[in-house]
Amino acid sequence: MTFSEQRRIFQERKFELAMNQNYKLLISYDGTRYHGWETKPDAEMTVEGKIEAVLERMAGAPVHVIGAGRTDAGVHARAMAANVHLDVAMDEEEIRSRLNRYLPDDICVLEVKKASERFHARYNSVGKTYRYSCYYGPLKPVFDRKYVCVLEQEPDMKRMKKAAEYLTGEHDFASFCGNTKMKKSTVRRIDSIEITKNGPYIYFTYQGDGFLYHMVRILTGTLLEVGFGRRSPESMTALLEARNRSEAGFLMPAQGLCLMDVRYF
Amino acid sequence: MTFSEQRRIFQERKFELAMNQNYKLLISYDGTRYHGWETKPDAEMTVEGKIEAVLERMAGAPVHVIGAGRTDAGVHARAMAANVHLDVAMDEEEIRSRLNRYLPDDICVLEVKKASERFHARYNSVGKTYRYSCYYGPLKPVFDRKYVCVLEQEPDMKRMKKAAEYLTGEHDFASFCGNTKMKKSTVRRIDSIEITKNGPYIYFTYQGDGFLYHMVRILTGTLLEVGFGRRSPESMTALLEARNRSEAGFLMPAQGLCLMDVRYF
Repeated sequence: MTFSEQRRIFQERKFELAMNQNYKLLISYDGTRYHGWETKPDAEMTVEGKIEAVLERMAGAPVHVIGAGRTDAGVHARAMAANVHLDVAMDEEEIRSRLNRYLPDDICVLEVKKASERFHARYNSVGKTYRYSCYYGPLKPVFDRKYVCVLEQEPDMKRMKKAAEYLTGEHDFASFCGNTKMKKSTVRRIDSIEITKNGPYIYFTYQGDGFLYHMVRILTGTLLEVGFGRRSPESMTALLEARNRSEAGFLMPAQGLCLMDVRYF
Repeated sequence: MTFSEQRRIFQERKFELAMNQNYKLLISYDGTRYHGWETKPDAEMTVEGKIEAVLERMAGAPVHVIGAGRTDAGVHARAMAANVHLDVAMDEEEIRSRLNRYLPDDICVLEVKKASERFHARYNSVGKTYRYSCYYGPLKPVFDRKYVCVLEQEPDMKRMKKAAEYLTGEHDFASFCGNTKMKKSTVRRIDSIEITKNGPYIYFTYQGDGFLYHMVRILTGTLLEVGFGRRSPESMTALLEARNRSEAGFLMPAQGLCLMDVRYF
């Protein structure tokens, strides 16, 4: 039986196999080269796929890594959380260093820690922090051009901060959801939106209980439209009420987005 | 007559053509994609070539950009200096912003300034600063992996600083010259070598009047061999006296090297 057959059978059995230990992982990656986090059929280059491939060689059996979220193609992570059930005769530090040795240099496992049998990186997550990075200035960000979005125009910070206040809190974010056929609840809670400037860099930092498909990128696009004077900060209320994606602003490119942190109890 | 024919004729005439104004440029670039600074036959991707191509479209005539130095393939620059004679009806800021608009996003022109007719970026340069960046730690430098060299072992800072003292000053650096058939003088003056540590990063900063082919990368490789205990700091004296490339240490990879600054009177 080939490895891919083994793996398919394993996945069909939905992990009924007994696995010795559940581990929590923290992972940093440059998403530029990847078709996102999650392994999909026909998408060879995913971060999850790269990590699973190394773990499978270590365990000599198929493994399934569960990420806290599914970052899109081109989106980066400073500390994605994940969990995996493994049966290997190695301590946590050995697993981590082995992973880092065999993973490509744009993926780094920051931490491997034993977790309780029932820990699930996605279901148990209670909050995430995302940062969207923009650059506006007379020069070009030569050395971090793959991690920022260059703006053609300078946005008004005050207007954006005012608009962000309307978006903070628990709302139906259907207007900011890239999946217009979403059947589940589109209600989410944003704990804070911080907009800061450091020289030519403008950072949008979002903390919340969870984010919808494309939500951070659409929020940032909409806030920038406010900053450019194309919308008023006050119009955010009507926009939330509209529950209609086409009323919101543009989808910012993936490269400026970074998952900073995933929180658990 | 085609553009490339025009250009060839122009280059053969060695710039006898009258050009209205000499400009000094400061340029920052990520060297990863390039076959170095200098245009060579058959090497399409050079930083000089990219800049000349944009300037030629602006001037409607062939132009020749003279760089202060010739960084190798894969070497970066924070502020390469160059000069160019141009006949364009634009002010300095217009030239700069036009260049940045049409140059790829890994090259940025920081400054365009009128210079005296006789200013020559290479001949008039009186000093340069290069920095070589290394990384040693349990994690991997995911987001700046293209600008550092990852070390497998931790070098001893004290030993390296001691060795650097022997190399500072005016010496014949033939042992550190990558061009073993060099006919001109291999005497150079290193004003200072600073070796600093910032978390997992180790920086080697060299200031000097000029550097030979591969000199900074061979110096760094040799200092690291001292740091790893494979050579003594005191052996630097004999190494300088040997005037023999094969006695010196390994050539560090290009990606860790960055031209920081070029000095003029």
